[in-house]
Amino acid sequence: MKDFVIIGHKALTTGDFSLNDLPGSAGRMDILCRCINTALFLSHGMRRDINVHLVLLGEPDPGKIIRFNGEQLRYLSPDERSSGSLIKKALEKDATPFESQSTPGVWIRRGGLAKLLEEFTENNRRIYYLHEDGEDMRNTSTLSDDAVFILGDHMGVTEEEEGAIKAVSAGTLSIGPLSLHSDHCIIIILNELDRIGLKQTEAQSET
Amino acid sequence: MKDFVIIGHKALTTGDFSLNDLPGSAGRMDILCRCINTALFLSHGMRRDINVHLVLLGEPDPGKIIRFNGEQLRYLSPDERSSGSLIKKALEKDATPFESQSTPGVWIRRGGLAKLLEEFTENNRRIYYLHEDGEDMRNTSTLSDDAVFILGDHMGVTEEEEGAIKAVSAGTLSIGPLSLHSDHCIIIILNELDRIGLKQTEAQSET
Repeated sequence: MKDFVIIGHKALTTGDFSLNDLPGSAGRMDILCRCINTALFLSHGMRRDINVHLVLLGEPDPGKIIRFNGEQLRYLSPDERSSGSLIKKALEKDATPFESQSTPGVWIRRGGLAKLLEEFTENNRRIYYLHEDGEDMRNTSTLSDDAVFILGDHMGVTEEEEGAIKAVSAGTLSIGPLSLHSDHCIIIILNELDRIGLKQTEAQSET
Repeated sequence: MKDFVIIGHKALTTGDFSLNDLPGSAGRMDILCRCINTALFLSHGMRRDINVHLVLLGEPDPGKIIRFNGEQLRYLSPDERSSGSLIKKALEKDATPFESQSTPGVWIRRGGLAKLLEEFTENNRRIYYLHEDGEDMRNTSTLSDDAVFILGDHMGVTEEEEGAIKAVSAGTLSIGPLSLHSDHCIIIILNELDRIGLKQTEAQSET
């Protein structure tokens, strides 16, 4: 599995929002919805080997993690309202420190970035921080198929969050010469991993 | 300028649709909305050197072209409803064979793919067809900053359209090992052009 973590600093933590106003009253939930789309959709199907963790830090009950799991996911269409609707259903559940499933392939629990970093570290996962000052990911030979990628939202990442990520990360990566939205970065990361995967398959078939 | 053309085979050709149902009653207008987003947004600003041409071929009045021009565009936010709303406003105007502006940076006229191909050819533009069977774009040395890219929608491109494109195109390009949605392809194309642009700037500063 590959994991993407996106921090939604203003994303509402109740299901009490309108799907007609994802950017406004839902606290830029539209950004998180687009990240769900870019991390999970292929032209004809879904990427089954991906988890997306949305860290929701907005009012009124900050500190919830919603996980979309590509393997088990159902009822997701590519449009923003569709992922928005599954996020809303997840937020309508009572969240505890333990994951509970709201719809097939979508889980919610209490927690934040620290909890996720702790779990990934315990499982010896390679964590990458995405930032425009990082090393060009095309020059990174260590990218593996089970990497974890941490991205900010329109507000980026706070100093405190950055400190916590860098303390456990295997490196800071950049996706190219220009700074892009998180959902756009995810496409470029996955394209790079698709290419690495293809090369590995070709190398194996030659031996 | 770089130009992207996206063919919306079912996209409604009247403004009489609901922003709450872009995928359904508006004929997969959500796909075109996401292409607007990926072609035009940078993290902090917009790509000003880009035109996006949406070719709308759905009912009730097929054959309209809506052009979003990055240089003059205003009132666009990244969410699907925002581009959907500007498309709706454009479709509420009477379309003629000549462009008329509906909101700043958005134009509408009657026409289709043939008209666009004719104009690009007259202006000696290099036209690229995006298709999974094409040459990997990372291996294409001829990509220039004023290229034109033609993409299909969820239905791809018809045989007839493909014939017309290939008759005038400089080549067929693929974006990587897997087949992706058109809006995702646009991100990868632009990342490649950003990298080529950076290399050229660095080469110039060395001389």
